[in-house]
Amino acid sequence: MVRIKGAGSSAVERIQELILAEGLVPGDPMPTETALCERLETSRSSVREAMRTLASLDIVEVRHGHGTFVGQLSLSPLVNGLIFRARLDDGNDLRALREVVELRIAIDLSVADQLVDLYRGTVNPELEALVEQMRELAAQGEPFPEADAAFHGALFADLPNGLLRQLAQAFWEIHTTAVPMLGVAPAEDILDTVEAHRAMLVALEAGDAEAYRAAVHEHYRPLGRTLDAAAEAGRTAALS
Amino acid sequence: MVRIKGAGSSAVERIQELILAEGLVPGDPMPTETALCERLETSRSSVREAMRTLASLDIVEVRHGHGTFVGQLSLSPLVNGLIFRARLDDGNDLRALREVVELRIAIDLSVADQLVDLYRGTVNPELEALVEQMRELAAQGEPFPEADAAFHGALFADLPNGLLRQLAQAFWEIHTTAVPMLGVAPAEDILDTVEAHRAMLVALEAGDAEAYRAAVHEHYRPLGRTLDAAAEAGRTAALS
Repeated sequence: MVRIKGAGSSAVERIQELILAEGLVPGDPMPTETALCERLETSRSSVREAMRTLASLDIVEVRHGHGTFVGQLSLSPLVNGLIFRARLDDGNDLRALREVVELRIAIDLSVADQLVDLYRGTVNPELEALVEQMRELAAQGEPFPEADAAFHGALFADLPNGLLRQLAQAFWEIHTTAVPMLGVAPAEDILDTVEAHRAMLVALEAGDAEAYRAAVHEHYRPLGRTLDAAAEAGRTAALS
Repeated sequence: MVRIKGAGSSAVERIQELILAEGLVPGDPMPTETALCERLETSRSSVREAMRTLASLDIVEVRHGHGTFVGQLSLSPLVNGLIFRARLDDGNDLRALREVVELRIAIDLSVADQLVDLYRGTVNPELEALVEQMRELAAQGEPFPEADAAFHGALFADLPNGLLRQLAQAFWEIHTTAVPMLGVAPAEDILDTVEAHRAMLVALEAGDAEAYRAAVHEHYRPLGRTLDAAAEAGRTAALS
């Protein structure tokens, strides 16, 4: 039932079945190449090729010098695919990137009530410190991806849906990687984004879902303007 | 900047750069293997291996007997990865599948206002016919995946965000593939799901976002019960 496209799919599928049959979980060592050849009754070259395909899907992980393990099944293939799609999208309207950003907004909005339940009446000095760090960097004209990632990761840390958390992070990673390739200066109003992080947090601590939603929209407005500017400047070619 | 995990990444990356540099788009023929070897100054075996990895990511597409083309950059690697993740998840609580379903619900809810704008005051005989088709099949105890897929695809067809449409379809595909592997009978109240499709459509035609949201929740309730039953029966092992 697991369909993997492309040639060599049969060894790929059989290795997946073997992982399931053995009850292996992410991080467990994979059988050796020799053992796989014997158990699948196939050649070393097909096993090797299948393992590379599985590595590109993060179903196995090659740690050089340490061996091969069951992978984390992360969303890295999605991230890579969508970054490539964003770079291919030279219709000058940056549609692929806008769609990614819209989905990130949809996720942030969809968890408003859950976040209010988690944060109402709490104080969060670590999150405040991250906002302060972003503010200092932005004031110096510096980008602040690490603090931004840390803020959003920590904000969502207690949400029960791990796939939602990973998807939010994947979309973050896609636009954070792709937007600098556009070769446009970040919007001058980037400090508004920093303050929007603060407003999101304050709203959640106050138990105000509506104010949180408004702050989410504020948070993405400068990014939207950056994408508008890049599209207008017809600078999309610089994406490659 | 495009990071592809696993061995052989260098030929993989260089082929991606070549696709970008040549301005190729999905469906365009790829250069021949010989041409790629010459242009990347690398061996036939690394090109071949890289192309297989790219095929598994749907960045290229091998049409047997016709050659190799730039792929559709679909979400099939995500679908395959998440189905595998669902099958690995034998903690007996079916968490991976529940997370997928929750995300599908979040997407359906996130577009309520957009759908109301599209459907208010319209009549949609094709969508009604699909609901009728589902009802007849369900009444006979038959599954109705084709009509279900057609309904959701058609309902979202005019939404502008293509990535959102693909993601909704990907999540649909994951639970539709994985749930039958659980080996439990579908919930007896599956007719409620059929009627919920009708209620979603009626609400949208009436311009009532709130009623649409309520119908979305109704739509997923029988699926939730099926997952509960499967988890309770400890039947997760049957997933493999």
